[in-house]
Amino acid sequence: MQDAAQIIETAHRMADAARSAIMPLFRSDRLNTENKRPADFDPVTEADRAAEQAMRAVLAKLRPDDAILGEEYGAQPGRSGLTWVLDPIDGTRAFLCGAASWGVLIGLSDGEKILYGLIDQPYTGERFEGGLGQARLTGPAGIRDLRARRGVDLSSALLLSTYPEIGTAAETAAFGRVTKQVKMTRYGLDCYAYALLALGQVDLVIEAGLQSYDIAAPIGVIEAAGGIVTDWQGGPAIDGGQVIAAGSRELHAAALALLNG
Amino acid sequence: MQDAAQIIETAHRMADAARSAIMPLFRSDRLNTENKRPADFDPVTEADRAAEQAMRAVLAKLRPDDAILGEEYGAQPGRSGLTWVLDPIDGTRAFLCGAASWGVLIGLSDGEKILYGLIDQPYTGERFEGGLGQARLTGPAGIRDLRARRGVDLSSALLLSTYPEIGTAAETAAFGRVTKQVKMTRYGLDCYAYALLALGQVDLVIEAGLQSYDIAAPIGVIEAAGGIVTDWQGGPAIDGGQVIAAGSRELHAAALALLNG
Repeated sequence: MQDAAQIIETAHRMADAARSAIMPLFRSDRLNTENKRPADFDPVTEADRAAEQAMRAVLAKLRPDDAILGEEYGAQPGRSGLTWVLDPIDGTRAFLCGAASWGVLIGLSDGEKILYGLIDQPYTGERFEGGLGQARLTGPAGIRDLRARRGVDLSSALLLSTYPEIGTAAETAAFGRVTKQVKMTRYGLDCYAYALLALGQVDLVIEAGLQSYDIAAPIGVIEAAGGIVTDWQGGPAIDGGQVIAAGSRELHAAALALLNG
Repeated sequence: MQDAAQIIETAHRMADAARSAIMPLFRSDRLNTENKRPADFDPVTEADRAAEQAMRAVLAKLRPDDAILGEEYGAQPGRSGLTWVLDPIDGTRAFLCGAASWGVLIGLSDGEKILYGLIDQPYTGERFEGGLGQARLTGPAGIRDLRARRGVDLSSALLLSTYPEIGTAAETAAFGRVTKQVKMTRYGLDCYAYALLALGQVDLVIEAGLQSYDIAAPIGVIEAAGGIVTDWQGGPAIDGGQVIAAGSRELHAAALALLNG
């Protein structure tokens, strides 16, 4: 892609802007929460909104022709054929607890696939990115290549998911068939789970009920690291819903068989 | 205590030594794991052992008269009446996944109570300490006082625990009575959960099956921050087992009633 460098630069400026908007509110007494859906707790913070506004301002300046789909402020049409998919704070519940597993998600879609993804953790200073020739973690320990782990079979696999209550009863049962076969299952990591898979630290992430803005950036990062992300039927995960990410095709196939068994 | 400053200095040197021993192995391909109890997965890493050895070397030099109780190398008698209670890596499973919720735990006991506790997270560079006049977080964002949150009732409380499988069926049922009443329950944070309670970010931590070295340091940190840590009967938690930590006495009493309801 001709303007890859400018796209990547734009994504980093967006992530920088989001960091600046969010960090004064992380672990702050000033943090106010609201319920978007009172019946089903879903905190939205000032930080969430401020960060998306800050990212949209960067796009208005640097790439005004691109479309935007953001968690907080919805869809804005464009004319370049490219869409930025934004989740200003993925993991608002972790954010409220003061845990650093939340992240700023920035994905770039051409309507069919994710060209580039960025997962930023402002508190730890870690930025995971993949696509357009990149697959790297930039952080306090320097720069490190992202490479998903291969050669791990189910019985040795480390599995992450955000909630033990995966979704519907059927989804939870399907997930349970996988947890019974893997070496270890851990919960609570939000988008950071996908970052750890791209880093080669864990082997599977399985979730349900995701939105497109939850998974766009992770798809970009994981695919660039050699991993695979699909829905539970093996189709595209770009629209969210039931998602499985794996370090290798073999492990992906084995887990998919259990999910559908 | 006369030698409080020297004790605190010793604890920091121990934490520094543990950091140096552990960090080359965190997220490293060199990491090897072993099972202490093959029937019940419990990874112990080279890092775990190297860190405890490094901390014991500091004590041998600076405070040779104190006793030591460590997860990896057991008990060493002393003659000062003080015992250092060490868990070189609390949260080895998180460590294996590359998540930064594990920590180095250093507690100092006089045989009846915890005088001082330190929870160190080497990757984020956060050090939580409490006791002997201290109650603070030292980290990349500077120094911040630790103060547990008060005035939060059950329906507004944030609850953390490491595993959704709390322990026995009865323990899991008791825990479930609390989760039904609180605002939010999150899993997977290991010792970091206690640090977040001391920081005033969350209100309850409830776990079972703990060892004394899992809870000594958190007791020191949380009590210094104004919080309370007991077993599920309201007695001392110093020996581990069923543990509840709360930001206030009122919330503690309310949760205890549910656990025993």
